[in-house]
Amino acid sequence: MSVVLSLDAMGGDRAPDVVVEGAALAAEKYRDLTFLIYGPSHQIGPLLHQYPQLKDRCTLYHTDEVITNDVKPAQALRGFKKSSMRLAIEAVAQGHAQAVVSAGNTGAYMALSKIFLKSIPGISRPAIATAILSQNGRTVVLDLGATVAATPENLYQFALMGHAFASRYLHKKHPTIGLLNVGSEEQKGHSTVQDAAILIREDKNLTFYGFVEGDDIMAGTTDVVVTDGFTGNVALKSMEGTARLVKDLLKESLSSSWRGKLGYLIASPVFKKMQQKIDPRYYNGAAFLGVQGVAIKSHGGTDGFGFSVAIGVAVEMASGATQGTVAQDIQSLIE
Amino acid sequence: MSVVLSLDAMGGDRAPDVVVEGAALAAEKYRDLTFLIYGPSHQIGPLLHQYPQLKDRCTLYHTDEVITNDVKPAQALRGFKKSSMRLAIEAVAQGHAQAVVSAGNTGAYMALSKIFLKSIPGISRPAIATAILSQNGRTVVLDLGATVAATPENLYQFALMGHAFASRYLHKKHPTIGLLNVGSEEQKGHSTVQDAAILIREDKNLTFYGFVEGDDIMAGTTDVVVTDGFTGNVALKSMEGTARLVKDLLKESLSSSWRGKLGYLIASPVFKKMQQKIDPRYYNGAAFLGVQGVAIKSHGGTDGFGFSVAIGVAVEMASGATQGTVAQDIQSLIE
Repeated sequence: MSVVLSLDAMGGDRAPDVVVEGAALAAEKYRDLTFLIYGPSHQIGPLLHQYPQLKDRCTLYHTDEVITNDVKPAQALRGFKKSSMRLAIEAVAQGHAQAVVSAGNTGAYMALSKIFLKSIPGISRPAIATAILSQNGRTVVLDLGATVAATPENLYQFALMGHAFASRYLHKKHPTIGLLNVGSEEQKGHSTVQDAAILIREDKNLTFYGFVEGDDIMAGTTDVVVTDGFTGNVALKSMEGTARLVKDLLKESLSSSWRGKLGYLIASPVFKKMQQKIDPRYYNGAAFLGVQGVAIKSHGGTDGFGFSVAIGVAVEMASGATQGTVAQDIQSLIE
Repeated sequence: MSVVLSLDAMGGDRAPDVVVEGAALAAEKYRDLTFLIYGPSHQIGPLLHQYPQLKDRCTLYHTDEVITNDVKPAQALRGFKKSSMRLAIEAVAQGHAQAVVSAGNTGAYMALSKIFLKSIPGISRPAIATAILSQNGRTVVLDLGATVAATPENLYQFALMGHAFASRYLHKKHPTIGLLNVGSEEQKGHSTVQDAAILIREDKNLTFYGFVEGDDIMAGTTDVVVTDGFTGNVALKSMEGTARLVKDLLKESLSSSWRGKLGYLIASPVFKKMQQKIDPRYYNGAAFLGVQGVAIKSHGGTDGFGFSVAIGVAVEMASGATQGTVAQDIQSLIE
């Protein structure tokens, strides 16, 4: 089934190079994928020539306007009418593309998505979700920063959205849901999580496990971990920092003696496989939930391969069985 | 200089065995260290016989009463007057010991410490701090769970306490302080962190770096990372979970092929050194800050070696240059 994606070519630290390279890699992987690319033609045109596989697979829409990382969401809403990000989102809103991918300013991207893709009726705050590596495969974590101060009602709605996302994306019929807290005992935590637990437990459509702790995310105790955007963002980045530190320590240790060097040399295929398994690029691509369309956020600092993985999330969310259905699933859970 | 510590022998998952073993290991390391041990003599007496180095180095005070993990802080305050935890804390309050160590119920331990060791005047909420591994050595993180809902004023006081703790414990004259947030830009995050940043920046005794993100903790961007007890607890446990996952994946990968096995065999001294570096037992022992005495919390699931490391933190906090001074330093910063 053919999928059309719109790409904000100017989002991320190394745009547009990384975006075009990512599109080229994704074009090789997904045969029926085509792109609408938004950005300055004098920059993107020459890049497209480097990737023959993109020829006939993309349409370039010229714009010079860019939403940089220092633009506040309110500014992005008022101005920047011809920005690459806004035009890419509008392409989905107008039905020209099935999903949009951007590595740009998260706050602006979320604000514009809410306006142009429209919030799902009944969902008061959006959430950003991603499926990270865990002992049991993948764990969906949300919110990662869209809603930094969440009410119990918001957290309950995140549970609904996490359920819908995990059902489709992890292909689980009854994904288990954990609510992040400082302890697993019922009386733990502040009133917001206490009250949210009551709301989630009452909903018979959800499989509520109860409270989980920080180490349960990567232990894979539940399929979904629900938290506010402040805590989720800090947890995700803390985990990234830890993986980086362990990797650096290992590298340093192995290169500091002949035993380390020889051992590494012999086991290098194992290390490469292992490195691939914890490589954050393989988990790139977070979904904006709570809007009536598919908008995927790539990490701003990723490379071409990482961006192609985020495109893969968009393809999966936009194609076949999952087309438009996460939003519909969320809506049906509310009704 | 001789140090007397009081030990709650009945705190933690494998009490009293782990506590007595930890005391024995610490007794070997610190020559002038003696213990007051609180717990059931019929359980502890036979254990003491296993460790001849504890003979003449400890006094056993019998009590049968134990505060288990399901006891709420309010219950611990009302009843449990002869509990091992309460008696161990009272020993410090009455001047018989210079510091107390427990691996038991954190909420009860904190509540009892506040009552018997007394809060530092001007500090409205306590915090739990620990110095975790980072790229630059160690990073002090607080709060780890004492104050799950913190006001801007609380966070400012945590910055004062983190400054005092890092000055003494990391031996840094002007420790840099970061405030945990979802982004490093000034406009990021909710109003609590925004307002806290203003308070911390205004205090000329503190070296405020600004906002830091989750990955800055292990990157060692600042000497101290300040956050509320909810976020700090989740971040710490998320980091522990990540280290565990990476370790498990590495183990699994290396044992899955002959290349992995041989490489591991050759590089095994490197792996052992590396494992020691990320071993959470080496970072065991969190300090209760905001009370007028030294109370150290050990991880409940640690072993004898881990408990001896927590005892080491108590020794460092209670002896020589640091004796009583973290609390005094905090007080002088407030005045």
